[in-house]
Amino acid sequence: MFTPQPIGFVTSPFKDAAAIPKGVGAKHPEEGALNILPAFADGLADIEGYSHLYVLWVFDRSEGFDLTVTPPTDNRPHGLFSTRAPRRPNPIGLTVVELLRREGDSLHVRGVDMLDGTPILDIKPYLSSIPEEKLRRGWMTEAERQGLGVRG
Amino acid sequence: MFTPQPIGFVTSPFKDAAAIPKGVGAKHPEEGALNILPAFADGLADIEGYSHLYVLWVFDRSEGFDLTVTPPTDNRPHGLFSTRAPRRPNPIGLTVVELLRREGDSLHVRGVDMLDGTPILDIKPYLSSIPEEKLRRGWMTEAERQGLGVRG
Repeated sequence: MFTPQPIGFVTSPFKDAAAIPKGVGAKHPEEGALNILPAFADGLADIEGYSHLYVLWVFDRSEGFDLTVTPPTDNRPHGLFSTRAPRRPNPIGLTVVELLRREGDSLHVRGVDMLDGTPILDIKPYLSSIPEEKLRRGWMTEAERQGLGVRG
Repeated sequence: MFTPQPIGFVTSPFKDAAAIPKGVGAKHPEEGALNILPAFADGLADIEGYSHLYVLWVFDRSEGFDLTVTPPTDNRPHGLFSTRAPRRPNPIGLTVVELLRREGDSLHVRGVDMLDGTPILDIKPYLSSIPEEKLRRGWMTEAERQGLGVRG
């Protein structure tokens, strides 16, 4: 395996996990920054050409995990890997952000759903999408229909 | 931070990284399996409801990294975070797969681009897509236009 190390840290308006919108219909219009450490900044070359990026990051304020969880967006328990719950065997978060601009070693982005100060593990270009009409979303669709889908 | 641990391993037709198609236009029709370890299998409950999944995994046969790389799909150097190169500060791979069926603790999927035996770190539901018309792909689009985009 490997030893995780931060390549940078997130600046986000969210100081408290309870404030982050959750669920399949959740909007994430908030802007923030991915501040890359000087030692890794050369890896940002050419990133301005992409409209969207994947950000891999650490749920650094989560501990342990349960394999069955009842998410805030439903009232029934689900298998952990069917959810985006933060307490996971490997506490890695994944967010798609829109790249607004680069300023030095900081990427200004829209769509942050991480807490302020979150360690960043990796940034990858977002290259292609699955067409919406091909997506099935299991229990999340059902919870959404019942009006449970989005919780702030 | 945390200590990465495998939750399972990939069965894939790819025994050699050189055989895996790369680049923005690369197709990944290959089928394989995500074999989840018994200790984590309860976390798979309800996963059959999803059509697509994110798989986070380890580039376990890569070592070290360079911040500037010349990908096999271009003839110019690029910043590491503008590429999907396997040698990264945190060697984590990310793949979107289509879930075909579940058999016990194995998920049969289409779209594998990992090597056989790759350790799996996490599985997350794929919930939404960025519309294709909103995507810009930087140097990859240009390389593709020059016929450099896909390499087997």
